Parts: sequence; structure tokens; C-alpha cells
Amino acid sequence: MKWIIRVNMRNGKIDKYTASEEEKHWGGRLLIAKLLLREVPPTCEPLGRYNKLIFSSGLIADTAITTTGQISIGGKSPLTGGVKESNVGGSAGKKLAKLGIRALVIEDTPKNLSTKVLVLAANKIELINSPDLKGKMVDETIDIIRKKFGLNVGIICIGPAGEMKLYGSGIAVTDEKDIQIRYAARGGLGALMGSKGLKAVVINDNGAKTPKYFDSELLRKTGKEIVQYLKKDPKTENRNMFGTPAIMEAANELGLLPTRNFSSGSFEDIQNITGEKVREVILKRGGVGRTGHFCVKGCVIQCCNVFPDTEGKKIVASIQYENIALLGPNCGIGNLDDIAEMNNLCNQVGVDAIETGAAIGVLMESGEINFGDAEAAKDIINQIGKGTHIGRIIGNGTKLTGQVFGAKRIPAIKGQAIPGYDPRALKGNGVTYFTSPMGADHTAGNTFGSAGKINPLSGKGQIEDSKKLQLRVALLDTLGLCLFVRPPFVKHPEFYKSLLKGRYGWKLELKDIKNIAEDVLQTEREFNKKAGVSEEFWSFPEFMRDEPLPPNDTVFDISREEMKRIWDVKIPIDEF
Amino acid sequence: MKWIIRVNMRNGKIDKYTASEEEKHWGGRLLIAKLLLREVPPTCEPLGRYNKLIFSSGLIADTAITTTGQISIGGKSPLTGGVKESNVGGSAGKKLAKLGIRALVIEDTPKNLSTKVLVLAANKIELINSPDLKGKMVDETIDIIRKKFGLNVGIICIGPAGEMKLYGSGIAVTDEKDIQIRYAARGGLGALMGSKGLKAVVINDNGAKTPKYFDSELLRKTGKEIVQYLKKDPKTENRNMFGTPAIMEAANELGLLPTRNFSSGSFEDIQNITGEKVREVILKRGGVGRTGHFCVKGCVIQCCNVFPDTEGKKIVASIQYENIALLGPNCGIGNLDDIAEMNNLCNQVGVDAIETGAAIGVLMESGEINFGDAEAAKDIINQIGKGTHIGRIIGNGTKLTGQVFGAKRIPAIKGQAIPGYDPRALKGNGVTYFTSPMGADHTAGNTFGSAGKINPLSGKGQIEDSKKLQLRVALLDTLGLCLFVRPPFVKHPEFYKSLLKGRYGWKLELKDIKNIAEDVLQTEREFNKKAGVSEEFWSFPEFMRDEPLPPNDTVFDISREEMKRIWDVKIPIDEF
Repeated sequence: MKWIIRVNMRNGKIDKYTASEEEKHWGGRLLIAKLLLREVPPTCEPLGRYNKLIFSSGLIADTAITTTGQISIGGKSPLTGGVKESNVGGSAGKKLAKLGIRALVIEDTPKNLSTKVLVLAANKIELINSPDLKGKMVDETIDIIRKKFGLNVGIICIGPAGEMKLYGSGIAVTDEKDIQIRYAARGGLGALMGSKGLKAVVINDNGAKTPKYFDSELLRKTGKEIVQYLKKDPKTENRNMFGTPAIMEAANELGLLPTRNFSSGSFEDIQNITGEKVREVILKRGGVGRTGHFCVKGCVIQCCNVFPDTEGKKIVASIQYENIALLGPNCGIGNLDDIAEMNNLCNQVGVDAIETGAAIGVLMESGEINFGDAEAAKDIINQIGKGTHIGRIIGNGTKLTGQVFGAKRIPAIKGQAIPGYDPRALKGNGVTYFTSPMGADHTAGNTFGSAGKINPLSGKGQIEDSKKLQLRVALLDTLGLCLFVRPPFVKHPEFYKSLLKGRYGWKLELKDIKNIAEDVLQTEREFNKKAGVSEEFWSFPEFMRDEPLPPNDTVFDISREEMKRIWDVKIPIDEF
Repeated sequence: MKWIIRVNMRNGKIDKYTASEEEKHWGGRLLIAKLLLREVPPTCEPLGRYNKLIFSSGLIADTAITTTGQISIGGKSPLTGGVKESNVGGSAGKKLAKLGIRALVIEDTPKNLSTKVLVLAANKIELINSPDLKGKMVDETIDIIRKKFGLNVGIICIGPAGEMKLYGSGIAVTDEKDIQIRYAARGGLGALMGSKGLKAVVINDNGAKTPKYFDSELLRKTGKEIVQYLKKDPKTENRNMFGTPAIMEAANELGLLPTRNFSSGSFEDIQNITGEKVREVILKRGGVGRTGHFCVKGCVIQCCNVFPDTEGKKIVASIQYENIALLGPNCGIGNLDDIAEMNNLCNQVGVDAIETGAAIGVLMESGEINFGDAEAAKDIINQIGKGTHIGRIIGNGTKLTGQVFGAKRIPAIKGQAIPGYDPRALKGNGVTYFTSPMGADHTAGNTFGSAGKINPLSGKGQIEDSKKLQLRVALLDTLGLCLFVRPPFVKHPEFYKSLLKGRYGWKLELKDIKNIAEDVLQTEREFNKKAGVSEEFWSFPEFMRDEPLPPNDTVFDISREEMKRIWDVKIPIDEF
């Protein structure tokens, strides 16, 4: 049984019903796109009554396949004005899937904003008024919820930034033992949750029945093969040892590392913030510090870390490449402790660290505070939580900050901050940022891994590469798989077939599988087109077309017309 | 000879050349639409290199016809993202026309923002570096320019808000003796001028040659008939005595007066702010106070005033209906002195009083300051000029302020604040705000005058009425005529024919005249469509569809689909 649950935040009504045959074929990112297009007026106000906040587990999220605990969270994005799907690890996704919930749809807005907690359990769904959580930081929120609901529930929540409906706010998800906070960070979904008056979702999977798989043996066998492949892949060990910061030094060498508000692609203090350095510091300091930790139980990659202070106490977990890039070099800050503290503050107040780092970079360039001034930057992030004027400005993200301070360089595409890959030196990502229905989002089709095969400074082949990667990730996001399990599927696309057959008995050819991916992008594009935020109407940041980026001194020179060609590009089945 | 002048703010190059045959047929609002569509990439960044700031005199601006001194100022609007044409009285327009300048086009942006003054004279055009004007208030700017360039030049300038590129900033124009400041207020054109590093345009028409009219006698005769008609029209005397605030009491009675952030349509202290009260106070206080003043020499309506303090010294000139409505009732403020001071502060820092009043209303509803607290409101406007954080927020207008403070009620359409006519109680204006390429702009087709004939609370007939008024005003804006001379032209549309024949010898039928108006709207709509800001993609503020407006308790209930029908509505020639 797959459930769709609808909660109306105006009248408190809760509906639980079986997904239709069609809906059963939708999961994760695909489901979000389909529901948005079917039910949400594309031109509605993102924080108004008619937008919906949707949580969905992926198609195979209720299996034991490695990394399948990603939960997709989506709605019409306040930042981009288009579709947003942001998926995240942690323990909530798995628990949602175990309860057989394919989609949780939060509808309407309360007449007067309140602070509510939604509790999902096997036999009960309850919306609880929780004024005690009002304005609470994320860690405080988790603590209070744990005291009430115990250690075994999954928690999804927002910080004060989301409650204030700041466009840069994200949605936090805990992991098994609250070791780390994961974020569905991008697109301003925290503000959407805040607009619904929903502070947290608590998921209790006690008593959940194990679903009946169509062919358990096939699932088990496929899962094992995937794990074997991953274990042999050198990237797995690399990610396990150094986490996502593993790519820091390469990013700097390629000259694509956002530095001082995207005015350079390399950073002079790079040696202090590499993946190797992160590992070295963690191991040296000991305490609660650790590398090679998982965010979803059963993951064999385990790219997470806990970054401790000199006394071995946690500063932040997990610290990741993009956050370091934007909060660090992009703000002229080269000290890991400072960056970790900034990252933790973002997690606590409840904002996307990428959006916030880019906004602070803009603020620094305006001269309000200086590049490299970590104390001032921390103060600003603290002020987001307090709702001061400057806090609210920065908390609303890069584009708004740029407008307020009359900035010349505003590193945002489709209203959303550009993540840790400057598109002038990684042109494939420029194509993704510009054409993806998600806007400037590296997870929507990151071409960083192609840099060895395709010259990242040239426009050649980037459109095809971006299209291929956008399709692949759309599929992973629909199944509930983490991006990092992509390699075995690229090598053995028949794994997709086996998984969906093993789980549901669907007999799909590879072209059917690819059609699922195409369907995701088409559905999202249709929504965006109706919302007026298709690539037709966005401009690439003009400074990136005019100002060469050191050290490569390249500009972004793939034309809009050329990029629009992406939707005509056909990716052969054997390259998918 | 009709000149087009182009000034490149990056390299300082100035071009002056004769308008082409086609361009000679374009003036004012039509010229701006044509040039934008021809030369400005619709998706460009409004404050970037590729947008253009265009000044244009109307087709008959160089004649002695009454009120023909309006100057059209336009470009791609930072606020709406679409076409903006804002026209304004004062002495600059007439002088520009006298110099035979049909269009002044400001192109590109300087590499580093500077403070420049452009001086236009009969035989010389000069771009002067003027660091002494940096950050100066509008009155200070005018004083400094007068000292340098004398009492006979026309002045167009921006305040500090425009220099800071705040989206709510406008462009100020002086009148003959600096008695009053007129504003091309809407759409954020001050920010566009600021982005060009252009602080002021100084127009010296000494030695300008009188143009050769095709038929001076016809012009003289037609002009005389227009004046005779206007003198007999009771609206003229009413406007002359009470100015635009004449309609204050009627607006309140109709229940469409924006009150406390558009939460009511009538205001309890209305008796303190009526047109009659404005006149009474001005006459009683004496000093420099006056009513029935002109903004353009030769105007027979003379709706302007100078509002003095108790000592007879000027607080502000001219004080107008929309500014009183938004700075007064909409902020819960019912004292004319307070409102006049707020209006003057807006004029000095260089922001649109409508946009700013609406933004302060949103701020008050957020609880940051209280409704009715005039001192706090003045402080906020002062802070715009100082560029403090809250000043920059408010200076960026209503939509941004609403975003920053997570407001539920954001009274803006197409990014621009709704002026002094709540569309729930004047539905025709709702149609105009939503469908006009200008966004929420009462001057684009104000149906207030139709309230006697069409029920303003009903949707019936509103679309036709809006279309008719949008066409009429598009034509007036193209000729360079003030809105208030509309009555004789409605009664005697042949005046249009006579004026264009007398001036140019054009032999146009009424349908050709109407085609000019259609051409304005079509061209603007085409630009907006390509820019992604057509009515297709905007939503009417959802609170106005959901929350009934006291005292009529009506919501705005004309559907988007219904409103889109406006472009199929045909207005018969004899109703145009």
C-alpha cells in the first residue's frame, strides 16, 4: 500500500488515502513535478495559500538498497519561482518510506501563523500546536522534539529563518543519532514550510510493516552488485576518506572555486581548506570528530564527517565542499574553524549555506563588511536568526542582497545563488544552471566529473554533457538514490531495470527507464513555462559574460540560443 | 530637424544625428517602446550595461498647445522587469523639445560608478564629471546646478536613492522657478539613471530655433478650441482650486482609499486630508503657499499647489492625491503636515512617494513601526537617503519590503506598488494594473472617472473601460499631453488630427490616430512578452482575491482569463 497524506494547514483536516495506479509510478522528484503541475497554479504566490509543500520518498526508498534514504522535498520555489525539488539524506526519508508514505502534501496556509508539529506514525497522524518551538534554533528544536517523542523518530524541521519566511531558508533533517544535520537547503523551501506554520515533521516508524517486494531475491542480488561495484570504485574510498571536500584542491586548480564574490577562481589560502586538511584536522583533534560517516543507514560510501574544535567538541557535521567554497574562499575566509562555525550557524538559524555564503560575498563586495572578516560574517549569520534588518536581508539570499546594496556582481541564476563551481571555468555547469528547471543547482547536473574528458573552459560538448547528467540525476532523484551511487548505474544501467522489477515487478526496457528521466524534466519544464520562469526569460549574470575570471581569464560564452538547443539534444540509450 | 542623441556612459562618446523618417513618427511613450524593442535585449539586467535610459519629448511638445511640456522617461524597469514610461511636467520637457531633441538615449554603464552631469545646449553637448554632486539631496543638487548653469536651464536629476540604485527611486524634474519638484516617479527609473552614473541632465534652450510648423494657423486655432473647452469643463475649475486631492473625499466614500496597508478602503480621519482641507490650510497659512499653480508653462488647468508650514514656508510642492493616500491613510496617518513632510523627504532622497508609502504600510503591518507613527515614518524615509539597512529595504519598494518582512499582504502588481485606488472597490483599475504593460500604475488607464457610469464594485464593463482608457492615455503620452486635457479630445477626437496635421502636415484619419495608440500598447506588450513579464505570468495579489475590503466588503473577482480577453476587445472609433 502506498499512501498519499494531505494536511490542510488552514482547517487542520488530514486525509490519508491510497495512491492511484498512476501515482504509484511516481516517486521523489517525479512525484513532486507531477503533483505541482496537476495541483498548484503555476503563477501562484510561492508563500501563499495555493502553493503546496510536498515530501516524497523515492520509488525504491523502502528497500535495503544502499543510499536509498533520500527524501525529496519540493514545491514552487520562492527563490526561483519555479519547481523545486531538493533531496536530502538523514533518517527521515527511510522512515517515511517504511510507513508506506509515498507523498505527504502540506496544503493551504493558516489564517494566523502558528507553530505546528505534524506527527506521522503507523496508525496515527496528528497535527500538534507547539508554541514552545516558536523561534527555536534547529538544535534546540531537535532537543525539544526528542524529549517529547523519543530517540527513534525521524525529524524534519526549520529554524527561525524558515519561520520568518526568508527566501534563503532550508529544511533540516536529522540523522540516526543526531550526529549531523542534513539540509534540503536550496530554493527557499524552509520559507515555504514556514508559510504553512509547520515547524517540524516527526516520523515514527514503529510498527511499520515491511512491504512485499515483487522479487526480493533480485533486489538483494542487485543491491549486492551495486555495493561491490562501489567498493571497487576509487571515488568511493576518496569520498569516504575526505568527504565532498575531496575535490577542493582540484576545483582550485581548475580555477573554478568561487573566490571573493566570484571575482577569482582560485584562492591563495587553498592549502588550509583542502579535503586532506579537513581529514587531517579531524583526525588530529579526535574527540567526537570523525570522517567516513554515513547519513543514511546502509550507505557504503559514507562521505560525511564531524568537524570538531580543538577540544574535540563538535563544531559542525557534516562539512561539505560547496559550503566551504561559498562560506570560505567566496568570503575571502581561509580558516576551517571559522568556516565550520559559519556553517553551523547557518544550520542553526536554518538557511542554505550556499545561498548565505554567496549573499555575504555580495555584502562584502559592497564594502559593508570586509572580505576575510570571519567574525563579522558570523555576526551577520547570527543576526539572520534574530531577524534584524541586515539578518533578514542576507537571509533572503543573494539576489535580494544584491538588489538592496546595488551590487554589480550578483552571482545568481534564476534567482538562486551559484554554487561552488564558477561557470566561466566549468562551462557545462553554466549550461546546467541556466537550463535546469532547478536554476543554479549543481546537484541538477554537475559536470565537474567530466573535466578530465571535456575541456571545462571550452563550450564544446557541454550542452550534451549537461543534458546527459541532468537526465541521470533526474532518475536517481526519482528512485531516492544518492547522486554518489551514479557510477555503477552508468556502467550497468540494467541495475535500474532490476531494481524496479524486483521492487514492483515492472518490466521496463532501458528506454522506458530513460523516459522516466525525460518525464521528470519535461514535467518540470512545463510547470516552469506556465510560471513564466523558463530559460526563455532568464539572463545569465551579465558580469560573467563580460568579466574574465582569473586565473583562466575566460568568460561564459555559450549563447542563450545555443543553450536552448539542449532540449533537442538526444542522448543515445547506451550513453544514458 | 529632429535629433536623436546617444550618450555612451562607458566611453563618454556622444552621437547626435537626425531621426530617421520612421523615428520622426515616434514620440514620447511610443518612441520609448519602439527603441526598447529595437535595441534593448528584453531579458537584460535592468541595471546592467544593456538597458537604456531614454528621454523623449512628445510629438507636439514643441508647440504652444496647452500642457505639452510632458517629458517621457523610460527604459526596462527594475521594478516590473518590463517596459516603463513615466512622463512628467516641469520645464525640462519643453526645453528638450525646443532644442529639437526627440530622444536622448543613455547607453551602457561606466566601469566604475561616477557622478556625471549631461549638459544639452543648442550647439554643445557635454558630459561633465561632477563629484561635488555625489550623494546630494534633490534640492541641494538643484541649488548647485543653478549656481553653475544659471536660472534658465531645465534640470532633471536623481537623489541619493537613485545613486544607490534602489528600485523605488524616481527621477526629479524642476519647474520654471524651482517652485516645485515633479517626479517621473514610478518603475524605479531613478535606479536606472543611477546605474548609468548620471546624476543630472541640464537643458539649456538658449538660442534654440523655433521649428517650422506645417500649418501654424491650424495649430493656433486648435489650441484655442482646446483651451476654450477646458475652461468650460467644471473639472478644470475643480482641479485648479483643489488640485488632485480634489478626489480624496470621493475616493473615501467609494471605499477605495488605501488605508493601513490596504486593509480598509476608508479612513476615519478623512476630513483632515480632503482637497478642500488642503486648499483651506494653504490659503489660511499664506506665505509661499499657493493653489492653482502650473507645472508646465501655458497650462490652463494649473492643478499644482505649494503646501506651506504654519510660518508660510514651503513644506512640499506639489502635494497630490496619490501621495497623500499612500503616505497618509495607508500608513494610518491623518495629519497633512506630517504627510507633506513625508512627501518632501521622498522628493529629497529621490524615491517614488507611492512606492514608499506602500512599503512603509507593509513595514507597519509587520509591527516594526506602528500605524500612525509619523515620526517613525519620517525617520525611515530619512534613512533611505542615508543608505541604512532599513532605508535600503524601504527604498527598494513594496515587493522587496514584503519579502524581507515575510508579509502576508503585499500590495503590488507586476512588482510595483498599487497606487491610491484599491482594485477591490474600483475593479476597472484592477484590470489596468494587471493588464497594462506598466503594471500597477493608475496613469496607465485610470477608471476612477467612470465610477458614475460603471459600478466600480462590479466586474461588468470594466475590461472594456480599461481598454478604452489605456488606449486614450497611450496616445496622450505619445503626443506629450497631460492626462488632464483628455476631456476635449474625447469630445472632439478630430483635435488629434488637427494637431498632427498642423504640426507635421500628416493627413491622418481617426482610425490612424487610434492605430498609434494600439501601436504603443502592442509594442510594449511585445517587449514584455519577450522579457517574460506579460500578464500571462503575474498573479493578482492573492489577499485581494481572498480578503473582502471594508466598507464594501468586496474582493477582486475578475479572473485572469477574463482579463486576458482585454486584448481582443475592440473599441469602436466613435468611443475612442
